[in-house]
Parts: sequence; structure tokens; C-alpha cells
Amino acid sequence: MPLLVMKFGGTSVADLDRIRKVAEKVQAEVDRGYDVIVVVSAMSGKTNELVGWVEATSPLFDAREYDAVVSSGENVTAGLLALTLQERGVPARSWQGWQVPIRTTSQHSAARFVDIPRDNIDAKFAEGMKVAVIAGFQGLSPESRITTLGRGGSDTTAVALAAAFGAERCDIYTDVDGIYTTDPRITSKARKLDRIAFEEMLELSSLGAKVLQTRSVELAMRYKVRLRVLSSFEETDENSGTLVCDEDEIMESKVVNGIAYSREEAKLTLVTVEDKPGISAAIFAPLADAGVNVDMIVQNISEKDYGDRPGSVTDMTFSCPVNQVARARKAMEEAREAGTIQYDELIVDTEVAKVSVVGIGMRSHAGVAARAFKSLADENINIKVIATSEIKISVLIDRKYMELAVQALHDAFELEQA
Amino acid sequence: MPLLVMKFGGTSVADLDRIRKVAEKVQAEVDRGYDVIVVVSAMSGKTNELVGWVEATSPLFDAREYDAVVSSGENVTAGLLALTLQERGVPARSWQGWQVPIRTTSQHSAARFVDIPRDNIDAKFAEGMKVAVIAGFQGLSPESRITTLGRGGSDTTAVALAAAFGAERCDIYTDVDGIYTTDPRITSKARKLDRIAFEEMLELSSLGAKVLQTRSVELAMRYKVRLRVLSSFEETDENSGTLVCDEDEIMESKVVNGIAYSREEAKLTLVTVEDKPGISAAIFAPLADAGVNVDMIVQNISEKDYGDRPGSVTDMTFSCPVNQVARARKAMEEAREAGTIQYDELIVDTEVAKVSVVGIGMRSHAGVAARAFKSLADENINIKVIATSEIKISVLIDRKYMELAVQALHDAFELEQA
Repeated sequence: MPLLVMKFGGTSVADLDRIRKVAEKVQAEVDRGYDVIVVVSAMSGKTNELVGWVEATSPLFDAREYDAVVSSGENVTAGLLALTLQERGVPARSWQGWQVPIRTTSQHSAARFVDIPRDNIDAKFAEGMKVAVIAGFQGLSPESRITTLGRGGSDTTAVALAAAFGAERCDIYTDVDGIYTTDPRITSKARKLDRIAFEEMLELSSLGAKVLQTRSVELAMRYKVRLRVLSSFEETDENSGTLVCDEDEIMESKVVNGIAYSREEAKLTLVTVEDKPGISAAIFAPLADAGVNVDMIVQNISEKDYGDRPGSVTDMTFSCPVNQVARARKAMEEAREAGTIQYDELIVDTEVAKVSVVGIGMRSHAGVAARAFKSLADENINIKVIATSEIKISVLIDRKYMELAVQALHDAFELEQA
Repeated sequence: MPLLVMKFGGTSVADLDRIRKVAEKVQAEVDRGYDVIVVVSAMSGKTNELVGWVEATSPLFDAREYDAVVSSGENVTAGLLALTLQERGVPARSWQGWQVPIRTTSQHSAARFVDIPRDNIDAKFAEGMKVAVIAGFQGLSPESRITTLGRGGSDTTAVALAAAFGAERCDIYTDVDGIYTTDPRITSKARKLDRIAFEEMLELSSLGAKVLQTRSVELAMRYKVRLRVLSSFEETDENSGTLVCDEDEIMESKVVNGIAYSREEAKLTLVTVEDKPGISAAIFAPLADAGVNVDMIVQNISEKDYGDRPGSVTDMTFSCPVNQVARARKAMEEAREAGTIQYDELIVDTEVAKVSVVGIGMRSHAGVAARAFKSLADENINIKVIATSEIKISVLIDRKYMELAVQALHDAFELEQA
């Protein structure tokens, strides 16, 4: 029997009525001949409520107790969906993470998968069960305690189960109807993509497109799990949504497939840093220890004469989310006091945003960067930092130009046309 | 290290503030030198909300899924209390039923204990943990599914743990400050008892005193677990509340220790039933099958001439809760149609209440029944049915006289005096 994994997020299971709608979609796949594994999140708002209680109780909480508390919402929706399916005549049962078991590491609140044995669920499918409903986001540590995978972890649960069970596809039902060339709120020319390659989706996810959790896309790419993103609030069929798949499955891809953005970025520059071996480590190790997610890094070797600072010196620029600036500043000041780095000044610009052009076609097409830079120049948008990978070009610009830059790039690469 | 079990119900853990109060009480016992096992219910209202969702989803629900859903509230409070204790510097951790494990039968929603291995919790006490917080009401079936013990099951969890761990005492914290001679809302003369025997408490519980779940008292009596009932909303010390204990621990007991009542009772009489061997089974088996909790039973053998119904005949009277009358009537009518019983008429009186006088002293004192009946007669209260056991006398009376009867009996046995 072919097997499908379906995942429904918090807004899709927000109340009993929505859960009935979910059951309809699941039943439709059973009617098409699939065995189905459904992964559910907690009702929207529930996990936030639980997290709020934990944080109010204990600011520096024991992550093991945190996980035990915040994982409870998924158990409720899993049971309710199993009951709803049974009520419709579909043989179904629920599993909590520890019952499957979904074995993870002991890194509470950020656990990673170790193993998902198939025996228990396979045995029930063999007995005639058609749908296994699994509480997402949670697992079991080697110490038999409940772990969670971090926020958005239900996507990851779904992909991991799809990989473990060799599912034909993993359908992620969400509140949008697919992956767009860019955010439709920024330009009405944004177009829904029928297909997108894993690598592109990965860049889009990590660059700020909120539809799929980055880790779930990584996992899908590694295990070649075909993902489909589609709406839980619309009628859907076999061709709905966007398929995230191996690039071999995409016949003719455009050079650029999407424009991503990240609004709340900050640019930090350490002025007049001594340029010696190990200086990068001396700067970025304390930032990592302080939990700062450094993104773009640019080093300018300067030829200028810095007077009393002999030897080669440099300016080091990096970006991070705006809400991590205070932590970054503290880490740098402490490193300077400890004598591990020297710098004259830390210049912080919290009014920047990042815009990125993504496409696997870039690998074989030259001139993408030039075209991107020209379209920004035509709008008089100054580029502050540039970073590139094989399949993306990211620029840091003044935040006030962000929407304009997205629109200009979308036009420049003619993304409104399929 | 002496060990104490403490149990807190839903109103005692209704919010984070109340949970902090609970932690204070637990810490006080740790400071007195105890290792503590705490059993918690879900926040008040949570379990009802979950039950409501299940019932709205599936009227004839799968009890296994019901249990998976409704047990989730206790996991939240267990984790939050463990965190609160840690925050106060008390080494604590939470356990869900399956983690202990609290092994039960597979009777979902009404599971019974099979075994509670001590290894996991004992190992943590040996490592220096002072408090084990256990999610009440839940267990693990042989099929590794979550079971629940039925409503009020957290009391039972606490007593079972106290028995398994040989606890010095099991303290049940609730919203009243102890066991009273009768309901203080009915007479202000009601007096809090310092001690009460298991047998008396069992009669009072099953007769309608709502403070303790009957099953938990049965279990406490069987395993000689000393129970203390006390308030979670007041300052308490070693002498607070009421101790429920073996009668050996009660030096001088009064003849009668409590007056219980049950308001919503119904009296049913099958008129002119054939009096032959097996007739009782023919009547009460279908009632049991229909889920009718028959309480008092009285059979009047009649000498009257019943004309066309030769042989010996009788009237059979029994009582049950008012909300089960429809089911009882249906069961009797079906049995008559099936020919297994014959009767002329079913007379139903839904306007009755039960009042009971309870005391272990009755075993050795004659005249208790006479004194009870006289005090009712003095108030012109007509007794409709009488049932007695070794330590109680129950009467069915018109509901409108219920409060008067309780007050009269309380006075007759001078219960306001210690």
C-alpha cells in the first residue's frame, strides 16, 4: 500500500470544526488508496500559552520540565483527530512521541532524531488501520524523558517519518497555498511555483520565507523526501500547492526562482581590528557563545596608516538579527576587556534589511549578480554588504528600501511569468 | 529518610500563583526532613474542557483516545510544579504515569492498578532529589497506551503511591479543611473531626460526602495508608485537617461520627412481582447491564390475594440516582416484554433523598437505630425505606425533609460535641 505523510499546523487544528476539515482531507487520501501518517501540531496559541507559563514560573527553566509541559498540546490534537477519523469510519489511532517511539538525543528543546523504529505503526497498518496520527514536535530521550525539537518542529517530525517509512510524499498543510516567487504582500506580481528544488527552498527558508522550517527542508533534501506545501483552508487535489523536490524532477527551471527578504537585520562593524591569524575565531567564537546568529561576514583589508596601531589592520563587518545586537555588543566588549581582540570602535546600524535572489539556474548562468545589482542601482538603492553562494546572492540595504528592492528584483528576473 | 505523599487537586493548582502556594507547602515538609512524592491534578476546568472536546467529537468515543486526550492536563501541572520547586532551590522532577511507570489494567477510563515499580523514583531519591512530582489520574496499559483511573483518580494515584512506597502518611490537600460530622452548609453545628476510621470514611464517601473518592479510601483501608485531609488554602501544620486511619489509632470514638446525605435519589417499586427463586437476579441483572447503580433494596412478601396471579407474590422496591430512572424503566419494560419478569406496575418516586447515620461504635452499641428513628418521628418525617450495615443506618425520606432530617440526627447524636 503506498504511504503518504500529511502534516497540519496549529491554525489547521485550531478547533473541533477545523479538525473535522482536516479529517476530510485525510479521508480523501485514504479513499485514493493510501495508508496515511498524519502529524499534528497543538491548537494554535496553546503552545505559546504553555511556554508563557514555564517562563513565568522559572526564567532559567530546566529544559526537561519545559519539554514535558510544552509537548502536551500535541497529545490533545492527536487524540481528537484520531477520534474524528474513527467517527467518519476511518480506522485510526493516535501515537505520542514516546509511543512510536521517536528516539532523539537528550538535547532538550532542540533534540535531534536518532531513530524511528517502524515496528509498532507497521503492525497496526498490517491489522487494517488506515491512519496513524502522530503528535508532532516531540520525542523520547535515551533517559526516557520527553524531548521537543524546537519551535516549528512538527514539520521536521513529518519529514523524518516520511523518510523512515519511505513515504511517497510528505504534504505540509499550512495557511498559504504554496511557495511563491516572493511574498505576495510585497508585490501582487508574486507567482505560485508548481515546483521548487530542495536547494532553492532551503535558501528561501533560511533567508526568511516562513512557510517551512529550515531543518525540515534540510532533512527532506538529505533523504530525498518529496515535500508538498498546500493550503488546509482550500479544496485541494493531487495538483495543488507547490512540490519541493529534487532538481532532477524539475524539467526547465528559470535562472532565478525566488526573492527572499529578512526585515529585522543589523549591520555591525568592528573598526581597526588587528589583522592576524586567528582573529576571526577570536571575534566569532564569543559571538557564537553568546547565542548571536551571525549571518553575513565581510572583511576589508585596509592599506591605510593607522598611526599608533602598527602592523596590518582591518575592519570586520557582520550582520545579525536586530534583537541580538545587545548581546553581540556585550560579547565584543567583554572580549576587548579580556584582551583577546582589539578594536577602536563598534559601529552598529540597526536600520538594514537583507534581500536575496535565489535560483539553482545561477550555477550555469553568468551575469545574475550584475543584473541584480543593476536593477538596484536603477532605483538608487545603495548596497552595504554582499554575500553570495552557489545559488543565491544576498545584499544588505537600508530597511526603508526593502519592498522597493524586492519589487525591482522580481521585475528584473521576470518572475511573474512562468 | 521518612517519605510523605501529598496530593493537590485542581483548585489547588488552578494557576501559577496557586502552584507557588503548593510549592511552599511541599517545601515545608522537605524542611521537616521528608522525602516527598507529590501527586497533582490538572488545573481546575482543564479536564472538563478536554472531556467536552472528546464528547463533541465522538459521542461513542474510543476510550483509548479519550484517555490520551484527557490525561494531558496533569502533565502540565506536574511539570510546572517541578519547575516551581526547582526555582525555590528544592531538587525536584516530574514524572508522567508511563514514566514511573504506573502499570494498570487495560480498562480505559476506569483502569485499576497492577503494579508500581519503585526503581526509577527511588534511584532519583538516592541521587539527592527531594520531591518527585507525579501526574495523577493516569497510568500505562500492558499495550503501552495511556489509561486513566476515572474522575477523581488523582486521590487514588496518591494512595497507591503511598502504599507502594510505604509512605508515613498520604496528605490530601483540598478546598475544605477536613472531614466534618456533616455538611456545614446544612447545619452550622457541624464539627470538624480530628480522626475518623477508614470504615466510617468509606461509608461517608460512598454515601455522598464528596471530599474523598471512594476508591481511594478503599485502597487506603486495604493497605493501611494513613490519609490526612486538609486545606490547601490555609496555613497548615502537623495537626491540621482530619486523619483517616485505622480504628486502633482512635482512642475513644463516639457511637456515631457522621451524618451523610444524598439528595438526588429515586425510589422505584415493582408491584406484584412473582416471588420465585431467581426473581431477584431476573430483576437486577438487566438493571446492572443498563448501568443503573441500584443502592437500597427492600422486598415485601405479601400475604394478600392477588386474584388472577396465583402463587406467592411480592413488591420489590429499590433506589437509584434520579438521573438513572429512565434507564431503569426501560430495562424493566424490556425484561417484561422478554418474559423474564412479570409485574403489574412500576411506581416511581423521584422526590426522595437518602440520609445516613455512620459510626463504628454502632457495632457494640444497641439502640442507635431506635434513637435515629425516634428523632425523625419527632419531626414527623416519614421513613420510606431503611437499609442498614454494621456501621450505618440509611433511610429514604421525602426530599423536602432532607435538611431537617440531617439537623435532627446531628442533634440527636450530639455530634457538635467532641
